[in-house]
Amino acid sequence: MSGRKRKFWGWGFDDQRVPEAEAAMVRESLSKTYGTALEAAAVPPEAGEFDLRAPRIKAPQSLARIAHDDAHERLVHAYGKSFPDSVRMFQRHVPEPPDVVFYPESARDVADVLDWASRENVAVIPFGGGSSVVGGVETAVGGSYRGVASLDLGRMGRVIEIDRASRSARIEAGAFGPALEAQLKPHHLTLRHFPQSFEFSTLGGWIATRSGGHFATLYTHIDDFVQAMEVVTPAGQFATRRLPGSGAGPQPERLMIGSEGTLGVITSADMRLQDAPKFRASAAIRFADFLSGAEAVRALSQSGLHPSNCRLIDAQEARGTGAGDGSASVLVLGFESADHPQDHKLARALELVRDHGGQWDPPRQGGHREGAAGAWRDAFLRAPFWREVIVPLGIIVDTFETAITWDRFAGFHANVTARMKAAMRAATGHEGRITCRFTHVYPDGPAPYFSFQVPGRFAVLMVQWRAIKEAANEIVVNEGGTITHHHAVGRDHRPGYGREVPPLFISMMQAAKAVSDPAAILNPGVLFDPVSRAVGVTGAMAR
Amino acid sequence: MSGRKRKFWGWGFDDQRVPEAEAAMVRESLSKTYGTALEAAAVPPEAGEFDLRAPRIKAPQSLARIAHDDAHERLVHAYGKSFPDSVRMFQRHVPEPPDVVFYPESARDVADVLDWASRENVAVIPFGGGSSVVGGVETAVGGSYRGVASLDLGRMGRVIEIDRASRSARIEAGAFGPALEAQLKPHHLTLRHFPQSFEFSTLGGWIATRSGGHFATLYTHIDDFVQAMEVVTPAGQFATRRLPGSGAGPQPERLMIGSEGTLGVITSADMRLQDAPKFRASAAIRFADFLSGAEAVRALSQSGLHPSNCRLIDAQEARGTGAGDGSASVLVLGFESADHPQDHKLARALELVRDHGGQWDPPRQGGHREGAAGAWRDAFLRAPFWREVIVPLGIIVDTFETAITWDRFAGFHANVTARMKAAMRAATGHEGRITCRFTHVYPDGPAPYFSFQVPGRFAVLMVQWRAIKEAANEIVVNEGGTITHHHAVGRDHRPGYGREVPPLFISMMQAAKAVSDPAAILNPGVLFDPVSRAVGVTGAMAR
Repeated sequence: MSGRKRKFWGWGFDDQRVPEAEAAMVRESLSKTYGTALEAAAVPPEAGEFDLRAPRIKAPQSLARIAHDDAHERLVHAYGKSFPDSVRMFQRHVPEPPDVVFYPESARDVADVLDWASRENVAVIPFGGGSSVVGGVETAVGGSYRGVASLDLGRMGRVIEIDRASRSARIEAGAFGPALEAQLKPHHLTLRHFPQSFEFSTLGGWIATRSGGHFATLYTHIDDFVQAMEVVTPAGQFATRRLPGSGAGPQPERLMIGSEGTLGVITSADMRLQDAPKFRASAAIRFADFLSGAEAVRALSQSGLHPSNCRLIDAQEARGTGAGDGSASVLVLGFESADHPQDHKLARALELVRDHGGQWDPPRQGGHREGAAGAWRDAFLRAPFWREVIVPLGIIVDTFETAITWDRFAGFHANVTARMKAAMRAATGHEGRITCRFTHVYPDGPAPYFSFQVPGRFAVLMVQWRAIKEAANEIVVNEGGTITHHHAVGRDHRPGYGREVPPLFISMMQAAKAVSDPAAILNPGVLFDPVSRAVGVTGAMAR
Repeated sequence: MSGRKRKFWGWGFDDQRVPEAEAAMVRESLSKTYGTALEAAAVPPEAGEFDLRAPRIKAPQSLARIAHDDAHERLVHAYGKSFPDSVRMFQRHVPEPPDVVFYPESARDVADVLDWASRENVAVIPFGGGSSVVGGVETAVGGSYRGVASLDLGRMGRVIEIDRASRSARIEAGAFGPALEAQLKPHHLTLRHFPQSFEFSTLGGWIATRSGGHFATLYTHIDDFVQAMEVVTPAGQFATRRLPGSGAGPQPERLMIGSEGTLGVITSADMRLQDAPKFRASAAIRFADFLSGAEAVRALSQSGLHPSNCRLIDAQEARGTGAGDGSASVLVLGFESADHPQDHKLARALELVRDHGGQWDPPRQGGHREGAAGAWRDAFLRAPFWREVIVPLGIIVDTFETAITWDRFAGFHANVTARMKAAMRAATGHEGRITCRFTHVYPDGPAPYFSFQVPGRFAVLMVQWRAIKEAANEIVVNEGGTITHHHAVGRDHRPGYGREVPPLFISMMQAAKAVSDPAAILNPGVLFDPVSRAVGVTGAMAR
């Protein structure tokens, strides 16, 4: 993070505040929506306002060089960047901050931290950019540890080696999106993985959480970009071989991808890269209703056209983000290639969407950042910042994402919408609003992303949010979806995860963890409990 | 297998013999190559010629309905279909046949077999089509078991349920390629997974061994087609959720895909299907040398054009299979789509190959089964049958496949070729020939497939073959390749696998196995030893 301080209570750097004019616009828009002049119940916190628990443990002399325990560092590493994380910061509620924060500079440093922590019964929370919205980096791990350390990979951000012929690079896990791309750019290569958190998240975090990129189809998930990786576990190192493909047993990388810091710490990875796109073709298509749009997207997803962008946004969300006027669902459709023009693809795609009632203005050449797509993108990138305006107003705003097969989508969408409205009403007494868009689409189903918003009361936001979140977890899993498509499981999705995944698989994972992390110090409470101790659900989802 | 008996000593059904005219052609061609009139040292075996060890165990009454122990069944299930398997059959050498063969008709039957075997210390070898070429279904498991059972899923071959909207189907694991496709065809869907073994291999076998399909890029690996699966293990069942995608923890299916029957028995899977292609465009391109062809393929692999066929065949192999005249390497290039014409893609691909010196005759429209591609395909499908002609002549013919990043390919190809020639000479005293083609290509590297042939002596073929195979394993792994790209590990690739994969990962897999297979009865000797007993390398690779 090269010196620039991160904001511990919200998105971005400490010096990045939402300009007052923009904040006023957000407040006014919400006040108008709810027909009452909303006022902030709290101002942003300062580190000095927190009476943090004294560190219970101290880094040994050998690790002093990379250890920090000042209030700002401890606060930055206490929570991720979810709605409840923000609420708890505005409420000055951080009962279990890390006792110490380590900034390793090498895999050797990581191994030394894990050795020490295993010996001393200190929980270790691997930390990339800290952008988790599911309680994935939270340090509230309960009382069975002598202490808790956050392990921030942020000083390990180098691109170590580039193989131009194979278009791949070995990159340290702590590389943040912008720095990573900046190092690749002189070689005319790009990882082309752009999650919403891009600016404030790291390669290692993307891999550990199975990050979904910005693109809608084909090469978008971090899973597919990993060629090899190096992992440090309490039981030793683990490096896989750089290969374009292999059929030798279960793929080792796949055991670590999505392990969310429970099995080991990813210290570097060989990543498959791409050439930067030169050819683009895009269009914004309107549908009278969301389900017709979904049928059009199904046709596209099964066409083999592989659009890079295929974001269907319902009418209400389209209006909210400036992508539409609220009269129609909007499909932001785009194609990109580094090698050849995409006009034929767009032309065929437009035939398909017309078959499902889609209408559009004449497509723009190369204009993927303009019009509906551009408006949507701007709102998308600003949204995480707006939370610092919204939380003190006592408004609950959150999102959840899932994936479901096409055969069940229509019923799923209707039931999730109806039950979430009921859950919001039950928790707050107010009418909430829930909108939906597709972030990714597959031939066998979409990944719907739901955003919800309902007025709550600042003092009890955690209780209200938790009731709604629990309902969302239950609805999604009951209706056949996955508990998470790309936000990860963390602590907030554990109840749903436990119902989605076969218990025998969990037992097998626990056994694997007992090998790589015999003292069960790594990210306890995330995904599943270690066999040797029940940690259970802690943090924001704890009751 | 619906009544038609399989050949226990070679490829295909018992009634499928290579016609004498075709056999004579193969013999004459080899005699000409080696400048001597080759004669068969053995005739095909009959089941009655084997003095099989009496079954050491008997199926319990409750499983009698699905148990068989006649000589033909025991011989069919003793080995796979590799070169050494064929040699040992021609040599009438089957010291460790299965004691009993089970044909379960349901997941419940599978569970009952595993329960009984776990109690009775009987090793169980899951068997799909038995087409393994790496010792994956071999029943020679050593002396620490009371007996060994083969578990043939061949009676579980139904397509259970089709979801047309999501293009997916739930299919029993014992479905053979042709029967599977025949059941999908009325629904205008196809799995479109065509390994060379297609006719004689099963869905469950494909998943358990990470089968590579016929197509060169994109959707070709069985890994990518699995939407969900049901697995029966000695510790219980394990069913995953039908989802188009998920980011919830390490993907459970990926633990089982490639587990080669060591962790559980796949009983059914939900598979992603495709529409049958309607549009095709193809060409056969000649390159003066293989490495220029490889550079052209690299450009294609990184272009985003995603050819369905992109098979670069070196000059010698092109001549041997009728795809060329031996003066040039041949690239068989093809595009397919169910949705839109592929001419633009082919046109762009031809620009790319021309930049690397490729030359071609005017492309044919829709002619992917004609010309070089057709000739190659015919030879490809007949090759497994020819082994029954070649083995008794005392000629060693075998193949191995790998994958390697582009930056290392040229050196890899040169070194593998040189060292394999040396290994063949050392083992037999004769000059051998080794050829190469690409079966699959990725943006970061090709999957080279090597075929080798050298005259040996019938009586000592096993010793000679083993020396060469060990050299091949060592060369491939030393040079940075993977021990297997799509043939699987089985018993024959274990030494290389043990060097390729991190020991800590193996320990984690062993721990997972101790959960799902606590008595360690499942396919011992494949991939890795169970923690509870060292089985080591048995069968064809044993010394």
